[in-house]
Amino acid sequence: MKIHILVIHGPNLNLLGQRETSVYGTDSLEKINTLIEKEAEEHGFEVSTFQSNYEGALVEAIQEARGKYDFIIINPAAYTHTSVALRDAILAVNIPTIEVHLSNIYKREKFRHKSYISGVAIGQICGFGVQSYLLAIKAIAEIIKQKKETEE
Amino acid sequence: MKIHILVIHGPNLNLLGQRETSVYGTDSLEKINTLIEKEAEEHGFEVSTFQSNYEGALVEAIQEARGKYDFIIINPAAYTHTSVALRDAILAVNIPTIEVHLSNIYKREKFRHKSYISGVAIGQICGFGVQSYLLAIKAIAEIIKQKKETEE
Amino acid sequence: MKIHILVIHGPNLNLLGQRETSVYGTDSLEKINTLIEKEAEEHGFEVSTFQSNYEGALVEAIQEARGKYDFIIINPAAYTHTSVALRDAILAVNIPTIEVHLSNIYKREKFRHKSYISGVAIGQICGFGVQSYLLAIKAIAEIIKQKKETEE
Amino acid sequence: MKIHILVIHGPNLNLLGQRETSVYGTDSLEKINTLIEKEAEEHGFEVSTFQSNYEGALVEAIQEARGKYDFIIINPAAYTHTSVALRDAILAVNIPTIEVHLSNIYKREKFRHKSYISGVAIGQICGFGVQSYLLAIKAIAEIIKQKKETEE
Amino acid sequence: MKIHILVIHGPNLNLLGQRETSVYGTDSLEKINTLIEKEAEEHGFEVSTFQSNYEGALVEAIQEARGKYDFIIINPAAYTHTSVALRDAILAVNIPTIEVHLSNIYKREKFRHKSYISGVAIGQICGFGVQSYLLAIKAIAEIIKQKKETEE
Amino acid sequence: MKIHILVIHGPNLNLLGQRETSVYGTDSLEKINTLIEKEAEEHGFEVSTFQSNYEGALVEAIQEARGKYDFIIINPAAYTHTSVALRDAILAVNIPTIEVHLSNIYKREKFRHKSYISGVAIGQICGFGVQSYLLAIKAIAEIIKQKKETEE
Amino acid sequence: MKIHILVIHGPNLNLLGQRETSVYGTDSLEKINTLIEKEAEEHGFEVSTFQSNYEGALVEAIQEARGKYDFIIINPAAYTHTSVALRDAILAVNIPTIEVHLSNIYKREKFRHKSYISGVAIGQICGFGVQSYLLAIKAIAEIIKQKKETEE
Amino acid sequence: MKIHILVIHGPNLNLLGQRETSVYGTDSLEKINTLIEKEAEEHGFEVSTFQSNYEGALVEAIQEARGKYDFIIINPAAYTHTSVALRDAILAVNIPTIEVHLSNIYKREKFRHKSYISGVAIGQICGFGVQSYLLAIKAIAEIIKQKKETEE
Amino acid sequence: MKIHILVIHGPNLNLLGQRETSVYGTDSLEKINTLIEKEAEEHGFEVSTFQSNYEGALVEAIQEARGKYDFIIINPAAYTHTSVALRDAILAVNIPTIEVHLSNIYKREKFRHKSYISGVAIGQICGFGVQSYLLAIKAIAEIIKQKKETEE
Amino acid sequence: MKIHILVIHGPNLNLLGQRETSVYGTDSLEKINTLIEKEAEEHGFEVSTFQSNYEGALVEAIQEARGKYDFIIINPAAYTHTSVALRDAILAVNIPTIEVHLSNIYKREKFRHKSYISGVAIGQICGFGVQSYLLAIKAIAEIIKQKKETEE
Amino acid sequence: MKIHILVIHGPNLNLLGQRETSVYGTDSLEKINTLIEKEAEEHGFEVSTFQSNYEGALVEAIQEARGKYDFIIINPAAYTHTSVALRDAILAVNIPTIEVHLSNIYKREKFRHKSYISGVAIGQICGFGVQSYLLAIKAIAEIIKQKKETEE
Amino acid sequence: MKIHILVIHGPNLNLLGQRETSVYGTDSLEKINTLIEKEAEEHGFEVSTFQSNYEGALVEAIQEARGKYDFIIINPAAYTHTSVALRDAILAVNIPTIEVHLSNIYKREKFRHKSYISGVAIGQICGFGVQSYLLAIKAIAEIIKQKKETEE
Repeated sequence: MKIHILVIHGPNLNLLGQRETSVYGTDSLEKINTLIEKEAEEHGFEVSTFQSNYEGALVEAIQEARGKYDFIIINPAAYTHTSVALRDAILAVNIPTIEVHLSNIYKREKFRHKSYISGVAIGQICGFGVQSYLLAIKAIAEIIKQKKETEE
Repeated sequence: MKIHILVIHGPNLNLLGQRETSVYGTDSLEKINTLIEKEAEEHGFEVSTFQSNYEGALVEAIQEARGKYDFIIINPAAYTHTSVALRDAILAVNIPTIEVHLSNIYKREKFRHKSYISGVAIGQICGFGVQSYLLAIKAIAEIIKQKKETEE
Repeated sequence: MKIHILVIHGPNLNLLGQRETSVYGTDSLEKINTLIEKEAEEHGFEVSTFQSNYEGALVEAIQEARGKYDFIIINPAAYTHTSVALRDAILAVNIPTIEVHLSNIYKREKFRHKSYISGVAIGQICGFGVQSYLLAIKAIAEIIKQKKETEE
Repeated sequence: MKIHILVIHGPNLNLLGQRETSVYGTDSLEKINTLIEKEAEEHGFEVSTFQSNYEGALVEAIQEARGKYDFIIINPAAYTHTSVALRDAILAVNIPTIEVHLSNIYKREKFRHKSYISGVAIGQICGFGVQSYLLAIKAIAEIIKQKKETEE
Repeated sequence: MKIHILVIHGPNLNLLGQRETSVYGTDSLEKINTLIEKEAEEHGFEVSTFQSNYEGALVEAIQEARGKYDFIIINPAAYTHTSVALRDAILAVNIPTIEVHLSNIYKREKFRHKSYISGVAIGQICGFGVQSYLLAIKAIAEIIKQKKETEE
Repeated sequence: MKIHILVIHGPNLNLLGQRETSVYGTDSLEKINTLIEKEAEEHGFEVSTFQSNYEGALVEAIQEARGKYDFIIINPAAYTHTSVALRDAILAVNIPTIEVHLSNIYKREKFRHKSYISGVAIGQICGFGVQSYLLAIKAIAEIIKQKKETEE
Repeated sequence: MKIHILVIHGPNLNLLGQRETSVYGTDSLEKINTLIEKEAEEHGFEVSTFQSNYEGALVEAIQEARGKYDFIIINPAAYTHTSVALRDAILAVNIPTIEVHLSNIYKREKFRHKSYISGVAIGQICGFGVQSYLLAIKAIAEIIKQKKETEE
Repeated sequence: MKIHILVIHGPNLNLLGQRETSVYGTDSLEKINTLIEKEAEEHGFEVSTFQSNYEGALVEAIQEARGKYDFIIINPAAYTHTSVALRDAILAVNIPTIEVHLSNIYKREKFRHKSYISGVAIGQICGFGVQSYLLAIKAIAEIIKQKKETEE
Repeated sequence: MKIHILVIHGPNLNLLGQRETSVYGTDSLEKINTLIEKEAEEHGFEVSTFQSNYEGALVEAIQEARGKYDFIIINPAAYTHTSVALRDAILAVNIPTIEVHLSNIYKREKFRHKSYISGVAIGQICGFGVQSYLLAIKAIAEIIKQKKETEE
Repeated sequence: MKIHILVIHGPNLNLLGQRETSVYGTDSLEKINTLIEKEAEEHGFEVSTFQSNYEGALVEAIQEARGKYDFIIINPAAYTHTSVALRDAILAVNIPTIEVHLSNIYKREKFRHKSYISGVAIGQICGFGVQSYLLAIKAIAEIIKQKKETEE
Repeated sequence: MKIHILVIHGPNLNLLGQRETSVYGTDSLEKINTLIEKEAEEHGFEVSTFQSNYEGALVEAIQEARGKYDFIIINPAAYTHTSVALRDAILAVNIPTIEVHLSNIYKREKFRHKSYISGVAIGQICGFGVQSYLLAIKAIAEIIKQKKETEE
Repeated sequence: MKIHILVIHGPNLNLLGQRETSVYGTDSLEKINTLIEKEAEEHGFEVSTFQSNYEGALVEAIQEARGKYDFIIINPAAYTHTSVALRDAILAVNIPTIEVHLSNIYKREKFRHKSYISGVAIGQICGFGVQSYLLAIKAIAEIIKQKKETEE
């Protein structure tokens, strides 16, 4: 049975590669999604990606993941620090979720050090640019592998 | 003249009955709306219900209530703790508003103890599951009754 | 088997109807107790009321409720914000308790926003004047009804 | 070459002139936009106006301003105090932005004293009603003039 | 018409003259009451004094002052810093109240710097030992005199 | 000359053995007092015990201990965290006092970590159930012994 | 030997009687100084008054009081809350000082609740209008009287 | 009747053009005053300018403005963050006041984000260099115009 | 089967009897260890003692206690307030641990009121000098006794 | 040229597999080191591992890494939250460092949410058990690869 | 070319030797200035000294130092903790400045631990009485020497 | 009799001259120790130097200084902000101690502004590079000289 992963990109990530490239790198979101898909393929996973600048749309993307996806990888961007609604959505669907950030949020403004998401995620990966996403996929691969080993 | 009530459900409440049932109960939002309508009917009120996961949509539902509704019952869910925009919308339309919560928010994470809404509401009812809504309707019935008695 | 409810009024509530009527209304505590009794009767409940200005007396009223009352409705008034002893008493007797307030405490001084009681209560109802008590009785009626339905 | 300015109005500003007129004045948003356009015209600027109650829509309005507008004037209203996403959008598009408020936010509730926007704006103008917008346009006119003088 | 003043002494003040005399002086409460009565007499006032170690008893002393006393002088002692109930009682009876302290509370532990009473009192006099009480009576004398002058 | 010890139990401790037995054990207060008396006897001490749910009564018990008791052992229970009056009473009578708690208050809610009493006590013993009291008596025995040795 | 008192008025007090008369009363500073002098005379004291809007001038007035004045009465006005220099000056000259305020500072903005002066003053009198000064003189009269009695 | 405006410059602004020119620009205070006067003239206003490094002198400049000036424009510079005396002076003279800053104070050290002045000003303009002053004059022109329109 | 207890002394306790004797008493650590051993012997316990000024050494002493000791008595001294590593070591070995202090840490600097250890200890005994250790041994004796009684 | 990686394990990690296995898993540190070495080998890296319970030893391990290692992977365990010395060591040697944690520190006690290390690390990976280390190695592999691509 | 140093003494330092001699020593400011001059002479420096109790005068002394002095040594006394204006003056003139204090400010009241000056000074020397000034001069001598060595 | 000084260097200072030379200068610790020794010699002092990265080793160096050294000069580096153990060691040995820092800690991260050492040191010297140490020796020279003068 194939593993399905939903990758969710938060607000302003649609501008990737065009803005503040010294902080976020020069890859466009499209390019990043391609890299994510490639990584997923290598592990035999199916992956969908979703970006929105709307908190509500992100909430609904998580809600609709129920029954369709086995894992969520989320870069909540600015909503990391302000959205209880995203936290509640993750709690509600109860799908194992990994929080990722392109930049190291702990090197930036103080208000970026607090995450409403980390308390309901499996874990957090930040500071590795697009690799943050790819490492999350690799983490899922390993979780699956371990689960299989345990089940045998 | 009939009293019109708008009942507003905040983010993730569309999942009711499906998620965290130990916390939120097993009734679906549809079921809850039916109970709300039944309660309203008993008091001769007309009631509309609205749910959205979008802060903006909730703001607009409140805005459009002007001239159409005599009372608002709102369960702002996650936006309780983060939305100044909802507070401003309630201030702007100046419709008497009752804040309700399914769970007792004071038994949960510390960030759920602060409400931007309570300061602009008539009152707050929390912790009684779906009854929180129905008690709000009963409260309105009594407010109407008292007003009538005063006017006579 | 009849349901017994103890209604506890905290400090200064004996002055109701005589003080700050713009905030607390013009009904005397006697009048309020009559309304509470009437509401209880309608649901077939037996109700006792108790008021004291002494934290210790309120603690003991709660203690003595064990084995005699099925529910407590408490308006802890000023002690809401300062009494760990009342909290401990409620924890100790383990009787389901509803916290009520005449005024919306979230519209008043900041120190009134914190309640030591809410964390050990079923729920909180505030801002509806004497109706806050009556809604609490209605809430109990519904809890009883649901319990019966579950048991059948 | 003509200067293009995007004027962005945050949540609830569509109700202007209808709500809390003692705080926000009696001019409707339409009227305000006309005044803004008139002021812009006097300086030979082209101006577009945009209002939304959706944080996401406001973020996208800012994103789409890239390459089309030389300046942004934003009244983030309630989102001033809660939106990191708007801050990030302004950072991303790197268009010089002026923050305006109709009321003096420093005379209001404490949570309105903090702005996520002011740290990424050129400057802030607040407390002058609709004039806050018009002063922002005048400020742009002067910035343009100084720039020209420097270039000559 | 004679002016009636109620002087209320808070917890542990019954031990005056016997404890920590370097801080509170060597006069017993009885002696202090005699001095208070003497001072009152000089101004033609009638004065009653009351001491209790019970917050509830102090609340009730204030409540019962209604209709009987024109002024309250209160030294809330330890309850200064912890009693919202005393504050509410003063608010309820609406009798002009002066807060006094034997010692200068601002020279002591930090938790003694906050008073729940000062916000509802006419004024505060602290640091003058028994004179704090006598100065309060002198203050009342002057308030009466000014009132008479205004009325003439 | 016999050593006299006053053991003071704060609010809700009269319910011991009946409430939250997993936290506080199954011994009743009566049983605990018997154990305390037995322990005291072993050391040749005379011991009195006192319980009240009234802050004022506890204050007075401490006040009246002057001249009669050589040591106080106090479990201030809920008043630990809220009573400046108890602190002042201990300061006033100047009798060496040991603070005890049945449970480890540092494992419980944050507001239970602060004690107004510890700053005026000899020391604090918490977390050993009824043994906390008995250890306090043993501590007194040792203090007496050391004092005698020093005096010889 | 005559007692000399220096009365120091802080910033903006030169406007008394002309500004915010509902808060500060209608007496001019001149009038207040006359009342102070009259009160002083009644006790056989000599009094000088000084007002300045300069923190430095107030500091120097205190410094120069050494050897010339037996008591200082100071209304530090706005500098109450911001001046460590005034505190240091009082510490330096070591003249017994009474802090007075016309209004009850504890009823006003939160930043007015903190005084750098109260920690180095004998005591504080606030909320009695011009009487705050006169009560301070009466307090000095009593301190002198007690001192004489002790010396005899 | 001519409108008179007093422009007040706070501490260190006499060094403008000579210090930290990357932050404050290269215009000297003299040059800025000339620009202010020119702007005032265009609107038919009479303007006086005043600079001092003394808090007391600034307080007195405000005090003396009563009866002579219709508006105050103040750049309190460093005193923005530390002077309650300036706030009180503005409250006392009750002249409509606009707070301006050359730099965007919200982009600088945290202690510069708090203003004691903004709470008593009409509004605040910051971040536009010398234009902050000129925009304030333009704002006054508009206020006058609106007032005239209302009066007609 | 014999009970084994490890007594751990934190940094600077090797200087006992030589430093600040008014605070810590005149007994050397050697003397204290002798007293501890004597007390242990009376209860039939075997006791080892360990002191180090190295956080790492203390961590390892706890680690190595696994399988060898039934109880730990620890006076973490300065590391009480700064060492998460000691807390983690106690959590890791899961040996019942009693925290002791010679002095009453709640009478000292504020930073000494917080303990990282108390949250993972059975209980805390402080303020009794060397007796704090001996009381801890007596507490263990009682725990053993109760356990035996329960098992029978 | 071969890449050398130093993997540093903080205090108590030597107990892995033996303690709190529900939190930290059942693998011993030895086992984990083997997995790390295997992972490193797959990428052609050379890896050394080091564990200490001594802050000083960890500091020196980092210091000695200069000139020998290209990357550091550090799980600072308890020292994450308390060690400025580790932060300074990383700053001093200026070797790119990745911070890893076995558990999701944001789901644990509040004091574990703050890291002194994250501000000087490339990035942070937490919550994936032993995979946190392996993902860090994978991250390094990618960093190397990108660097090579850039250099070509 | 001779080095010129300006030594600035803040408020109340003119009283040195006369006040609180146990804290500040018995040397008068005159004596201290003589010692400073002597120390300066030994290094071949020219030194001027200035004292004022006026924040404004101190600001201007700093302003006027531009072009005349190579170094400033400042003991801002009470203004250390309250003056942003002094900080701004030092920033403005950009003369290397050393902050000195007679007493160890970290042993005194908490509000004296914060300095607005230290963030813009080369360094801080406190706790050495008059030597704090002399050490600052010695520090300057060394800075000059190092600069010369570098330049050669 | 010769004066003996112990100079203690905290963690990471062994890397001096090799790391962050723009912050800490290019001198190695060896070089610095030579300069310290040279300075000491000039005053006829004997000096020992000690560096460790271990908090425990630094504690023991201080402990062992008793009876051997007359003064301690300590640069606690990172342990300045986290070590209560060092504070306690200094308190215990009661040797006059001077705290020095190479950099101005008040210009760096906020957590570096707090020192556990400054409250138990004679004074603090920071920001002068290696001169901070040499100035401390000069300070000792002066203390000795003054003491001798006093004794004569």
